[in-house]
Amino acid sequence: MKFSNRITATKASPIRRLMPFAIKALNEGKKIYPLNIGQPDIKTPPSFFKVFEDFDKEILAYDQSQGNPDLINAICNYYKNYNMDFEPDEILITNGGSEAILFTIIAVCDAGDTIIAPEPFYANYNGFASAVDVSIEGVETKAEEGFHLPPKSELVKKIKSNTKALIISNPSNPTGVVYTPGELKMLVEICTEHDLFIISDEVYREFVYDGLEFKSMGSFKEAQQRVVIIDSISKRYSACGARIGSIASKNKELINEIMKLCQGRLCVPTIEQLGAVELYKTSDSYFREVNAEYQKRRDIVYNALQKMDGVICREPKGAFYVSAKLPVDDAEKFIIWCLEKFEYNNETIMMAPLEGFYSTEGMGINGVRIAYILNTDELTKAMSVLKKALELYPGRK
Amino acid sequence: MKFSNRITATKASPIRRLMPFAIKALNEGKKIYPLNIGQPDIKTPPSFFKVFEDFDKEILAYDQSQGNPDLINAICNYYKNYNMDFEPDEILITNGGSEAILFTIIAVCDAGDTIIAPEPFYANYNGFASAVDVSIEGVETKAEEGFHLPPKSELVKKIKSNTKALIISNPSNPTGVVYTPGELKMLVEICTEHDLFIISDEVYREFVYDGLEFKSMGSFKEAQQRVVIIDSISKRYSACGARIGSIASKNKELINEIMKLCQGRLCVPTIEQLGAVELYKTSDSYFREVNAEYQKRRDIVYNALQKMDGVICREPKGAFYVSAKLPVDDAEKFIIWCLEKFEYNNETIMMAPLEGFYSTEGMGINGVRIAYILNTDELTKAMSVLKKALELYPGRK
Repeated sequence: MKFSNRITATKASPIRRLMPFAIKALNEGKKIYPLNIGQPDIKTPPSFFKVFEDFDKEILAYDQSQGNPDLINAICNYYKNYNMDFEPDEILITNGGSEAILFTIIAVCDAGDTIIAPEPFYANYNGFASAVDVSIEGVETKAEEGFHLPPKSELVKKIKSNTKALIISNPSNPTGVVYTPGELKMLVEICTEHDLFIISDEVYREFVYDGLEFKSMGSFKEAQQRVVIIDSISKRYSACGARIGSIASKNKELINEIMKLCQGRLCVPTIEQLGAVELYKTSDSYFREVNAEYQKRRDIVYNALQKMDGVICREPKGAFYVSAKLPVDDAEKFIIWCLEKFEYNNETIMMAPLEGFYSTEGMGINGVRIAYILNTDELTKAMSVLKKALELYPGRK
Repeated sequence: MKFSNRITATKASPIRRLMPFAIKALNEGKKIYPLNIGQPDIKTPPSFFKVFEDFDKEILAYDQSQGNPDLINAICNYYKNYNMDFEPDEILITNGGSEAILFTIIAVCDAGDTIIAPEPFYANYNGFASAVDVSIEGVETKAEEGFHLPPKSELVKKIKSNTKALIISNPSNPTGVVYTPGELKMLVEICTEHDLFIISDEVYREFVYDGLEFKSMGSFKEAQQRVVIIDSISKRYSACGARIGSIASKNKELINEIMKLCQGRLCVPTIEQLGAVELYKTSDSYFREVNAEYQKRRDIVYNALQKMDGVICREPKGAFYVSAKLPVDDAEKFIIWCLEKFEYNNETIMMAPLEGFYSTEGMGINGVRIAYILNTDELTKAMSVLKKALELYPGRK
């Protein structure tokens, strides 16, 4: 009995696979600042939990495979605020953004096909794709340029006859870049010229700072048949443990195809969907508050990183991540060293090695992703610990 | 832009795809007895909902990718009642049994590989497999023989060099057959001789009637490295809408491989897992009551079917399904006719066409799956309606 080649080729998540080192450090009594994972400390709006308290059915039955109709309507309404006009039959509810990505990849790619993506990109794109024999072809973006896109020619170079789609996350996990309208337009042009689907992962849509305005791929009417919007309530409403995501596309045929996969897995959790309906009613003031908080955190992290010798990054404009190059031989070794060998007043930090967010071999070796999901006091302390660690690390370069 | 071949080749669920006809009939004011879907009418134990009422955290955070440790321990304990000894690191919590099946198929099969299965089999095996380029090779079992297994030679005939696994559901969805210890032993022998994984879907483990004892594939110590147990709380505790399933295997390496997929999709709903912990504490008396109720229902349906001219089936011994051959030209046409053209005192029935539970073309054309998930009064009425429909159907043979 052998395992499949595709599963052995699938890499463990760079965000989660160093957990055993963290658990060991915790057991040794160290305090760890967890900057590795995008688990916000923001409170979930209480309206969500109210639904759980009030649920009065005696049988927890299946919901519809497409998703709860009230939730679908709530999402249609939500998109109207972003000038996107989706009909209920253009939406599917999924088990988190994760399932939305996996199902979309299966629907647009056969085994052996490729998807292009500016790299570094959300690490789990690699995992989902490789599990179903698809490869992500990375197009390099640079810390020095704030991870903005390279010229069109660089992107086009990566497109081959078996390229079926482009995938982006915008605002980006892991880099925090928010693509400009010009960059998005260029991507739309490329995908139109090369007849590619555009998978636009916009789960951080609300997390945009410095007064920037977010533009969705869904707002390009000329490309609406090729655009698939991936969404999730996890970050938007700090409800990561609900696992409610969605797919939206004006391409009804594509929705019908993906619907077959939704029927296969029967449905998404019934009560969690009811909770999500309430979340989508959350007032704008919630986002304004949350946004202001994240902007403060971004400032703390970015300003601290700027002052550390040899660290390279540009100010991130969205999501709650910053990717940076560190003056170290190997970021993964550095992170493990921080957990195993290092402490500063019995405290240490955990980050995600950036290498796992690339598909191109050898890229991102000295990069890390830092999630600024702690409060400002904690983040300030975490940055001092990081500074100290970089000073003491034997593999410093 | 073309969709993938694998998605276009994937068939819509036979259990759910006729829903539009049902919705139309409902809108016309007809009452439909829904015998098509395994949605039990049994109450979910209230301990589940208590967890939701009592949840007192303010942030709905991610849980661990492997699953909630308390739930994993609860499942280990539960298996001990069936003489199966699993360690916590041999269990993964999944988004329903559905995800458990999909992940296991990905982990043991590459694109182009095959899995053998006695057919008819749970229709969604086809869907999951075909979505990831795997085919299910059906081994015929017959209504006339109560869908018990054919001789070893018939099974072996279907094994090719690219066959990686056997999959069964036991008790079986859709046939209700409970395999004898002898049959299971034969399957273990075959899989050992041909070095195949054994994927044993035992989500109906408790639903066994007439005093029969259930034997799990997990009880064959000699095969424990090749056995993967698929499980779910959906039917066991009438909690279909929770979407909590699991994978159990003594093959720790396999668990580690599948864990990569679990990490990719981050986690399973946090609160639903806490609810599941409570469900696994449900007393045996619950199962005795539920079992007695299903046995009564089974009797009503089976006795009624026996008395209908031209209907072929044997007494099912487990799960809550019976598969039967009907005296009709085409069962799907018959089901649609029941919804569109037929009514008896303004009532009709919905069933699942059995053809979708086969992978061999042309099989199961005149078969249906009936789920006996209504109370005894309703089921008695539903059977009268079916009898009438069969008498009046123009395509009767």
